[in-house]
Amino acid sequence: MNYTFSDRMKSLKPSAIREMFKYAADPSVVSLSAGNPAPDAFAAKQIGEICAKIFAERPIEALQYSVTEGYPKLREYVKGYMKQNHNIGRDFDDVLITSGAQQIMELSTKVLCNEGDVIICEDPSFIGSLNSFRSLGAKLCGVPMDPDGMNMEKIEEALKSNDNVRFIYTIPNFQNPTGITMSLEKRKKLYELAKQYEVLVIEDNPYGDLRYKGENIPNIKSFDEDGLVIYSGSFSKVIAPGLRVGYCVAPDEIMRKMVVAKQGEDVHTNILSQLICYEFLTQYDFNENLSMLRELYSKKSQLMIDLLEEHVVPHGITYQPIDGGLFVWCTLPEHINMSDFCTSAVKDYKVAIVPGSTFLCDESATSHCFRINFSTPSDENLRIGIERLGKFAEYYFNK
Amino acid sequence: MNYTFSDRMKSLKPSAIREMFKYAADPSVVSLSAGNPAPDAFAAKQIGEICAKIFAERPIEALQYSVTEGYPKLREYVKGYMKQNHNIGRDFDDVLITSGAQQIMELSTKVLCNEGDVIICEDPSFIGSLNSFRSLGAKLCGVPMDPDGMNMEKIEEALKSNDNVRFIYTIPNFQNPTGITMSLEKRKKLYELAKQYEVLVIEDNPYGDLRYKGENIPNIKSFDEDGLVIYSGSFSKVIAPGLRVGYCVAPDEIMRKMVVAKQGEDVHTNILSQLICYEFLTQYDFNENLSMLRELYSKKSQLMIDLLEEHVVPHGITYQPIDGGLFVWCTLPEHINMSDFCTSAVKDYKVAIVPGSTFLCDESATSHCFRINFSTPSDENLRIGIERLGKFAEYYFNK
Repeated sequence: MNYTFSDRMKSLKPSAIREMFKYAADPSVVSLSAGNPAPDAFAAKQIGEICAKIFAERPIEALQYSVTEGYPKLREYVKGYMKQNHNIGRDFDDVLITSGAQQIMELSTKVLCNEGDVIICEDPSFIGSLNSFRSLGAKLCGVPMDPDGMNMEKIEEALKSNDNVRFIYTIPNFQNPTGITMSLEKRKKLYELAKQYEVLVIEDNPYGDLRYKGENIPNIKSFDEDGLVIYSGSFSKVIAPGLRVGYCVAPDEIMRKMVVAKQGEDVHTNILSQLICYEFLTQYDFNENLSMLRELYSKKSQLMIDLLEEHVVPHGITYQPIDGGLFVWCTLPEHINMSDFCTSAVKDYKVAIVPGSTFLCDESATSHCFRINFSTPSDENLRIGIERLGKFAEYYFNK
Repeated sequence: MNYTFSDRMKSLKPSAIREMFKYAADPSVVSLSAGNPAPDAFAAKQIGEICAKIFAERPIEALQYSVTEGYPKLREYVKGYMKQNHNIGRDFDDVLITSGAQQIMELSTKVLCNEGDVIICEDPSFIGSLNSFRSLGAKLCGVPMDPDGMNMEKIEEALKSNDNVRFIYTIPNFQNPTGITMSLEKRKKLYELAKQYEVLVIEDNPYGDLRYKGENIPNIKSFDEDGLVIYSGSFSKVIAPGLRVGYCVAPDEIMRKMVVAKQGEDVHTNILSQLICYEFLTQYDFNENLSMLRELYSKKSQLMIDLLEEHVVPHGITYQPIDGGLFVWCTLPEHINMSDFCTSAVKDYKVAIVPGSTFLCDESATSHCFRINFSTPSDENLRIGIERLGKFAEYYFNK
């Protein structure tokens, strides 16, 4: 039979990152392309203890159907934690536990956007979110990134020239893929623009706790007295991604619609994982765990920067400095064909990097950039990978 | 701010079953409204052992990101098991692991249907699937149920009168909510209709292993030499629903599109749960577990039937006999207002049943039916619940 697929899926390609993930199976390839936490980052022993305790004390709760909104104690804990630590959440807000933060993007789009409605996105941005928006027929309007975050003039232009913008999507902290952090001034400006033009903001903050330098900047959601911001949080980078547990703090009217949509997607988030997160947050020292993670990744990020300076920068590749997160965004000299460069790197020099075009709102546009990651590879593989990248650049630029 | 929601969500109400689930929190209500496995049905001890082993031997695998398609060993196992036991799967098919079977409905619709495309459904049918279809803007065309399954003449009429039917959705075994099983003859006819009209079939089979009487009937997918059937399986009723692990066997071209859509929904299914299912299927006696479940539910279903005959049938309520599954479908005398009956039952007599209209393709249509479940309540609560229902019917019909 000849299959016909929906229009919304026709333009959608598999995520290049998830596809690249498959290269990791080839043991001779050093992958700088994933965004996985370091294996050392997992509190595996504690999580094993928690599991044992759950199965000893309340196995049925961990195995039975549960409510779509999420494990009530976890929701309450997140509500209190976000209010106390980040001034996030007002009386009109509520918390929804999701199957990873990825699901927040999908649910938000499903409940807020008709096909053809516009979402203003950072350009480049996280491919997973962009594909989620695309998969529901939303139209992406990309806004370029300045070193202090989205270009505000371009946002306003986009708001003026499109009458069906439903929300602005931003990763304000250590953005994926650029590593850029939005300044406080721009966060305030973005909120004012949302208010003025009556559009919502999705603030996606998977990396906020992974700051290695400088001071925390208040989240956009902390200004939200008007019910304009859907805040998206995740335990993937601070507990474990395999658990697939995210949470959003959103106006309850929106959250209730998301619950209805979630019933039709996966009924509820894996309850064992929710219990694990709750126990980990309340019975262990979560802040100590965050300190451990920051120390681990701070070292790895510095190692990558040092290696880039030594092996890669001399060949004319530049990079965006970072204060946190898991990625470094590199730019090739203008005359280099980025796509061919990335493909040849993995094929000929066995080092996998992610082509910058992957992250563009218009994937057919030109990019001279690529993304590399320092959290997943061992220090030894970081060294080998960046050395290979340097040698490959030398060969490629002079061939 | 006044929120505007997408057109596709406007018509969608929260699942009455999930909403009813909340009544279960009131300890004075006996709930016959859920569809949860019995607490005795969980191999809790074994799953606890499996968890301990996973955290002792390979914790990182259980906590790290994994591939969207699903844990490779589980996919391979399911492929072999379904081929060997059910003659399901051809060279053109592949297996996708999903976050519960619910996600299969959502992904299938997302990749196959444009908004306004038609899905032919059993009427009544499982609300979770219907809402999933609705949430993506599909149009439902309901086909009435005969005692041996969907009315084939009405399917053909629907296929003739709609030029944009994308698939036929059926639960052939112990259908939710009616308990009806489709005859072999109708399964073959349904497949022939799908072939003739070039539409797909989604065969949803969560209860197939829970047969208490009679012989198994081959699945529609077992006839599929043409790549027309998406088979949906679930571990929710035979291992544990809290794990949220389902699987589909579908033509690989469709499956690959579903993978792309799944990347944008939840990246991958909880990997710890996938490991648990794999270990349970391969290291324990899964068939023995199925025998235990059949014995357990066979007894409970017989208890419910006996109680219905004693307390409810004498008042003029009839029920559909069942050979398996978890539900019994009851019909009220024609002059009774079903909706008011169900609401009064939970409010005044503290017994929760599900209004039949919940399951209709057109929720505003009239139903004289309600659904009750025997797997979730204890035997004691089954007795109390059905006695209350009988007493309430006596009061209500004579008031």
